[in-house]
Amino acid sequence: MQNDAQAVQILTQYWNDDVALQELHDGFVENTISNFYLPYGIAPNFLIDDTVYAVPMVIEESSVVAASAKAAKFWMDLGGFKTKVFGTEKKGHIHFTYDGEVQELLGFFRNLRKDLFEKLEPVQENMKQRGGGVTDINLIDRTGKIPNYYQFEFDFETVDSMGANFINTILETAADFIKDKANDNLRGELEIIMSILSNYNPGCVVRAQVSCPVDQLQTDTLSGKAYAEKFIKAIQIAENEVYRAVTHNKGIMNGVDAVVLATGNDFRAVEASVHAYASKNGSYQSLSHAKVESETFTFWLDLPLALGTVGGLTGIHPLVKFSLQLLQNPSAQQLMRIVASVGLAQNFAAINSLITHGIQKGHMKMHLNNMLTLLQVTDEERRIAEAYFADKTVSFSALKKLLHRN
Amino acid sequence: MQNDAQAVQILTQYWNDDVALQELHDGFVENTISNFYLPYGIAPNFLIDDTVYAVPMVIEESSVVAASAKAAKFWMDLGGFKTKVFGTEKKGHIHFTYDGEVQELLGFFRNLRKDLFEKLEPVQENMKQRGGGVTDINLIDRTGKIPNYYQFEFDFETVDSMGANFINTILETAADFIKDKANDNLRGELEIIMSILSNYNPGCVVRAQVSCPVDQLQTDTLSGKAYAEKFIKAIQIAENEVYRAVTHNKGIMNGVDAVVLATGNDFRAVEASVHAYASKNGSYQSLSHAKVESETFTFWLDLPLALGTVGGLTGIHPLVKFSLQLLQNPSAQQLMRIVASVGLAQNFAAINSLITHGIQKGHMKMHLNNMLTLLQVTDEERRIAEAYFADKTVSFSALKKLLHRN
Repeated sequence: MQNDAQAVQILTQYWNDDVALQELHDGFVENTISNFYLPYGIAPNFLIDDTVYAVPMVIEESSVVAASAKAAKFWMDLGGFKTKVFGTEKKGHIHFTYDGEVQELLGFFRNLRKDLFEKLEPVQENMKQRGGGVTDINLIDRTGKIPNYYQFEFDFETVDSMGANFINTILETAADFIKDKANDNLRGELEIIMSILSNYNPGCVVRAQVSCPVDQLQTDTLSGKAYAEKFIKAIQIAENEVYRAVTHNKGIMNGVDAVVLATGNDFRAVEASVHAYASKNGSYQSLSHAKVESETFTFWLDLPLALGTVGGLTGIHPLVKFSLQLLQNPSAQQLMRIVASVGLAQNFAAINSLITHGIQKGHMKMHLNNMLTLLQVTDEERRIAEAYFADKTVSFSALKKLLHRN
Repeated sequence: MQNDAQAVQILTQYWNDDVALQELHDGFVENTISNFYLPYGIAPNFLIDDTVYAVPMVIEESSVVAASAKAAKFWMDLGGFKTKVFGTEKKGHIHFTYDGEVQELLGFFRNLRKDLFEKLEPVQENMKQRGGGVTDINLIDRTGKIPNYYQFEFDFETVDSMGANFINTILETAADFIKDKANDNLRGELEIIMSILSNYNPGCVVRAQVSCPVDQLQTDTLSGKAYAEKFIKAIQIAENEVYRAVTHNKGIMNGVDAVVLATGNDFRAVEASVHAYASKNGSYQSLSHAKVESETFTFWLDLPLALGTVGGLTGIHPLVKFSLQLLQNPSAQQLMRIVASVGLAQNFAAINSLITHGIQKGHMKMHLNNMLTLLQVTDEERRIAEAYFADKTVSFSALKKLLHRN
């Protein structure tokens, strides 16, 4: 470890001069000692359901914002992105064991149902005013998988909030109530194992789609038809090969997470839901699909996205508030549509590069920039290196040779 | 949208006063207009393979750093985390179609192999000096899945770099060479679809593990044996139920991603690999497992982690450099061990809360703090609210009522 003075200097150089602003950020989580900077950028020209957006993106990986912006511009001229929300249902579970008769448990739950909803009334008062709340509760028998294991499965509508705190509070309140009632009314032993929301959201899915006449896809070297065929072949590979599917979907998530972060949402929750959804058919597959029908190319993506535009950091992180204003203060459903469109744009940009000139050409330009920064070059050396590598493969060893560094 | 002056003020308040430092950060990606702050915290007391670490974590979600630190302290007193690296192999593929005879293709590849390695020599010169490079190349026949579809599968050792740029440069160089040779030597048509690394890394896996005598797990309300049984039941549910597995693994990734971000690695790549790995048996399952044998409780986690401690942002982002120094300048393998241990600690903390007092009690304290910040309360109001909610369920509506806000 370097000496303490150096460490203090590195950490404090990132503190904000505005003491109140710094205190605000320090309060978000515990044990904060500095601010970690991630680049905040904007990808303009997203035409989504006939509205134009400039989309805020937070990402440390080069080329992602530029790729999104380029794909957005391409599709803007062809009618833009069209989206559809298939549902907004979220789920949570009380996981428990019961060692008595299943019939007795079913009767207990039937009798309990009305009282349980009454018990939850005060906790969901605010959410109900906003049009959400608990929409259903079911008893699920999983004793075929694990001895004595059942679930109370709760369905939720959480409107414009992601809903994690609401859902967990409801579940823990319900679990305490059920446990009490079980002690008084059941002959067997009911043990609550845990009560927790699920981040898996196959009932909260949005589709983003683009389409155009095949001949609009023509490039310098490929006819529209040849381009579409190669594009669809690339998708087909990602639908069939896990080694490709993972990287294919990772590219989608480059765009998705950048907007999720910029809008103060939880990217771990989104990542977990999305990748589990990619494996729902028994093997891990591409989240996007493409086809040509009647000379029309269509490319689409389905994502399970539980997002919030109220609650959490959305109201308190100044740049998150700025992001939401930039996106015209979207509802959670509108944010789902925007995020999925950016994911599809990112995927289009990646496949486009891969099936034409490859990804390294564009990527290495940014990589060269990072290597030049690392070597702390002069402006003159930067010009020399950029000219030299304009038509050559960039490598750190070649760069060091060129600039006579060890 | 608010007016331009306000927007400029919000964006510029996050600019660093040190112009050179701000320019450095602006250079990481394109189109940057500000710095997005994520809290940078430290979780101390991680005893991993007999070395003590203070682990840097970048995360916006409350409770994660505190939970990691608490779990680390608990296991420190019981011998700490033990880890094992099962491999460090990475893969990349040239995906292509060939419409001729497979036998001819096999012969072509046999003849090509030596020249191909020679062609790649200058590109991998630097990597070879560091002990890495291309370790194998195989022709894989996938025509059973997709007509005429094959892969050249490349295996790589990338030592302390994550290796994405290296792998993609090798693959694109190889693809150009193969295409040229195919034109001269094959009767059928060989079409390169794309050349790209895989983010799926089942050959690059680390295990983190903790263990202790069962009676050490005793709590105020549960014997060690009862605690272990309930803990194992919670894991068993995550092994069998996708709705639980997703949230279970999401909790692991809270810890994993926080360290991945702090050390300048790519969390989208890690997320994609890890979640695909969770579905490798045909259904999406828990990444961690637990058992009791001979009165000893053992809890472990396997993660496919492709990480770098050189290259990318590691050498140029000042806080990333600080993180790596704090971790005693680890090799990529050492960083794999640390990240997996933090993931396991996070999972332990989550399951511990879930099977004992629930997660909302601790979580709502931080949530209350955020709501108080949102309402811009006075210090006096803060004291009133904290006292009031010490033994009650926190909700925004109850808070507003208490403080007479609308």
